[in-house]
Amino acid sequence: MLKNELYFPKTDINTIHSYASRMMSEFESGEIGYYHLPLEVEILSEIKEFLNNKIYDDVVLIGIGGSSVGVKAVVGALLNTEQKAELHILDNVDNFSFLSVVKKLNFERTLFIISSKSGTTIETISLFKLILKYFNVLNLDKNFVFITDPGSVLENFAVQNKAKFFNIPKNVGGRFSVLSAIGLMPFCALGLDCEALLKGAKAAKVHFLDNKDDTILQKAYHYATHKNAKINVVFSYCDRLAKFNDWYVQLWAESLGKKVGYKRLGLTPAGLIGSRDQHSFLQLIMDGPKDKTCTFIKVANQGNFTDYIPNMSLAGLEACNFTNGLSMNAMQNFQCEATKKALINEGISVDLITLEKLDEFEIGYLIYYYELLTSAVGLMLGINTYNQPGVEVGKRILKSLILKD
Amino acid sequence: MLKNELYFPKTDINTIHSYASRMMSEFESGEIGYYHLPLEVEILSEIKEFLNNKIYDDVVLIGIGGSSVGVKAVVGALLNTEQKAELHILDNVDNFSFLSVVKKLNFERTLFIISSKSGTTIETISLFKLILKYFNVLNLDKNFVFITDPGSVLENFAVQNKAKFFNIPKNVGGRFSVLSAIGLMPFCALGLDCEALLKGAKAAKVHFLDNKDDTILQKAYHYATHKNAKINVVFSYCDRLAKFNDWYVQLWAESLGKKVGYKRLGLTPAGLIGSRDQHSFLQLIMDGPKDKTCTFIKVANQGNFTDYIPNMSLAGLEACNFTNGLSMNAMQNFQCEATKKALINEGISVDLITLEKLDEFEIGYLIYYYELLTSAVGLMLGINTYNQPGVEVGKRILKSLILKD
Repeated sequence: MLKNELYFPKTDINTIHSYASRMMSEFESGEIGYYHLPLEVEILSEIKEFLNNKIYDDVVLIGIGGSSVGVKAVVGALLNTEQKAELHILDNVDNFSFLSVVKKLNFERTLFIISSKSGTTIETISLFKLILKYFNVLNLDKNFVFITDPGSVLENFAVQNKAKFFNIPKNVGGRFSVLSAIGLMPFCALGLDCEALLKGAKAAKVHFLDNKDDTILQKAYHYATHKNAKINVVFSYCDRLAKFNDWYVQLWAESLGKKVGYKRLGLTPAGLIGSRDQHSFLQLIMDGPKDKTCTFIKVANQGNFTDYIPNMSLAGLEACNFTNGLSMNAMQNFQCEATKKALINEGISVDLITLEKLDEFEIGYLIYYYELLTSAVGLMLGINTYNQPGVEVGKRILKSLILKD
Repeated sequence: MLKNELYFPKTDINTIHSYASRMMSEFESGEIGYYHLPLEVEILSEIKEFLNNKIYDDVVLIGIGGSSVGVKAVVGALLNTEQKAELHILDNVDNFSFLSVVKKLNFERTLFIISSKSGTTIETISLFKLILKYFNVLNLDKNFVFITDPGSVLENFAVQNKAKFFNIPKNVGGRFSVLSAIGLMPFCALGLDCEALLKGAKAAKVHFLDNKDDTILQKAYHYATHKNAKINVVFSYCDRLAKFNDWYVQLWAESLGKKVGYKRLGLTPAGLIGSRDQHSFLQLIMDGPKDKTCTFIKVANQGNFTDYIPNMSLAGLEACNFTNGLSMNAMQNFQCEATKKALINEGISVDLITLEKLDEFEIGYLIYYYELLTSAVGLMLGINTYNQPGVEVGKRILKSLILKD
């Protein structure tokens, strides 16, 4: 099970206590849907019935923002080198990316998932039309499935075209939706263990909400009240967590950047990969302004990947022999520890998340952990964590620019 | 040729003038090597002679930080769907990534490039040993080439093993080295037009240094003196610029995050892709604290990619018809304009870079533009732009942790 160690001072229990009860009320009110997704397992049998053991070569997800970022995070983390079906994501109206994906597909052996919460996301519908034209699609009832809000125009469209659809509960926000049909549909199609994913999320719920472990609230309080550190870095020591970082960035930025009256509040996320980004961003954290916190994520045991750095001494390069005989996994974790120590020595607020391994259970836990953390920081900042009013303006301007043209 | 429009107030010419002359002195001193790389074209014939028209299926670059980030940026931007050789980068001691690359290779038809400025980068040498063992390599004189500082232990190793090596000029820092052999070697192996790349960089030099266009200095001055906006976002509206964003992040963070006596200075970079990240980070820029500037990058004409959003009306989804008939390129650029307008309306400092197209000339120009911008901001902040003292501590801790274990 995921471990989280905080290397900064905790606040007193009473301060935390009041937020714990407010969070429980939020949970119990039933108004914030994501809290309850780990328990909604019935949808899995419906999805499996739809898939009916059919094996696809490729799964194409057309969806942007909340409809794809979380899917990439989970699939990216659980990649192995023996993948059966391949997942492709169309999440930008970008001609090069579009062609790179569609050129490789065998249409008959591809499942297309069209995901849009509102049903009218302009990028998603534009990409859907491009797919319809590219493959000259006549029927949607075979290898198309739609995921959208109950009663949306996209649901209606699916019904009219005799295509299968699944709903996202209305009170689950896009960026909190990865454990709903938004994620479960592609995960099942790819053969991931969705039961374990939800079980992991449920274990986080039990640990932090029912058993009242205060780690998340302590961390949230530190972030929400820190005078200078308004940038929260996640430094993951594993390439397969790169898309998880992106998911964190979306969750954090879109949830926590809000106006309250005339005040502008928000914390800025950044995602790094170790050790690679020790040769990039680290200098700025070490010597730049103390405006950052840093969460390290490492994986204790990366499973069946057990290649060792050979016991080899190259003439003149003996100074590099000190890593000889280490597994690559061990070397990454040593680098994580070393950088963690260096930042602690600089007086930077640091914490460490250790995943036991990369499997569905641990990733489900990690996702729910970060959703709870985001909710907690939002509560402490006194903002609405679940809306995104700022992005509407641009959408209106876009329409008027195009229509004027 | 690249155009850059600033949507924030310029400062008076006299202020800028003094920095212009200091930058010219830096250039003329010859101490900062990157300034002069666009003129060092002789190396190209040496690289081409080494390649001797040999066509490889795959090119594997083993290198981290400055040895790979810029290479990814250029190759990523110039990708087309008819690629001959494929580039793989090993820039992390990550077992999954390592296996994903090596499993696909035909050793005899692969060129391996080992790049390390110091010659003893621990990740690079560890990965090199892993390659030697995986392929049971006996000779390095056929398909291995080394890129390193003159006289380094890695150069020595290459010589002893009768392998070809190229040097990075000693006064060219890693993150400023993409136009040296670090980049030119892989670019030539992939068939990119390196002459055009250097010509583009030279055109930027002529425009900003010789002809004294003040755009870069104005922008740098705005960034260096802005009281609140310490985060500089680059928002690129083209998937193929994602790796360019990463290069910018490295260049900016590692160059500008520095201690000066007891003071900690620095600007924090962030890279976004449009329109995708309109559904992620944009909310925070729009409604969060006004601590960010935003540079939009768009590509006027993405060349032979000319797919249009079909003139299709889907029942119930007519609200999405307003993009019908647009090329994907045009839609991206409309989205860029719309988001730009929305941010300007919020009073955020914005500028727009328009690339004519994605080719070697424009990318060479863009790279040199950003290197000059970084130098200018560094001058104005009064820091040493070209070192990275903060990352040495972690390296020492790493060694002691491993040896203790």
